[in-house]
Amino acid sequence: MQNPSALDPAVADRLKRDEHGLVAAIVQQHGSGEVLMLGWMDDEALHRTLTTGRVTFWSRSRGEYWRKGDTSGHRQHVRSVALDCDGDALLVQVDQVGAACHTGTRTCFEAGGDLGAVVGAVPANDPDHAEEDR
Amino acid sequence: MQNPSALDPAVADRLKRDEHGLVAAIVQQHGSGEVLMLGWMDDEALHRTLTTGRVTFWSRSRGEYWRKGDTSGHRQHVRSVALDCDGDALLVQVDQVGAACHTGTRTCFEAGGDLGAVVGAVPANDPDHAEEDR
Repeated sequence: MQNPSALDPAVADRLKRDEHGLVAAIVQQHGSGEVLMLGWMDDEALHRTLTTGRVTFWSRSRGEYWRKGDTSGHRQHVRSVALDCDGDALLVQVDQVGAACHTGTRTCFEAGGDLGAVVGAVPANDPDHAEEDR
Repeated sequence: MQNPSALDPAVADRLKRDEHGLVAAIVQQHGSGEVLMLGWMDDEALHRTLTTGRVTFWSRSRGEYWRKGDTSGHRQHVRSVALDCDGDALLVQVDQVGAACHTGTRTCFEAGGDLGAVVGAVPANDPDHAEEDR
């Protein structure tokens, strides 16, 4: 990982990184809402993602920066990036070229597949109240 | 964390847990596609989520199971759960009652807010080729 990163300090100050200096990055197709994959970013990967129009991850398995699509052509063009309330997750909206998953499926969750969860029924009278959540 | 968990061994064998025994769980509103939040699950939290119709997380900050909505009423009723290609992320589709975020906003990413990314332009002739991705 590159340190220090050129990431805007106003953004860097808000990140709650894990012990490896990373935050989770959820990648979603703009428009359709498909969740394509989950990747990881350190400060520098986020900086590159915010400033270049292309999504860059930190590859935990290879220990290197990984600009999505450089090998495969399956580029992720950035539409927006949002940080969550506690600073440990990013939502990256993209225009995905081709398959997001290295297995060739559109999303990594198609590749892994459904786990057969019991579907929860929403009670008709379930109150939508506004008490403080935790 | 409860160990051993009652999680189906066929599912447990596919999980690639982090050093804390956790996988990331992306929570998405069924239908609208809104990404609501990111949480964490150990085997037992996933078992409960798959079998009870309600989403249960492992709270890293509190070190306890956390069935979403028990305090706030903002329940997450399970529609489906999928695992990703490499077993370290879950996509949980839910019917969310009320606000998903403890700050009171619908999603945790509204609460954290947009980071002002440069938007990437998709070239008109960007090839959508099918080479092996990595």
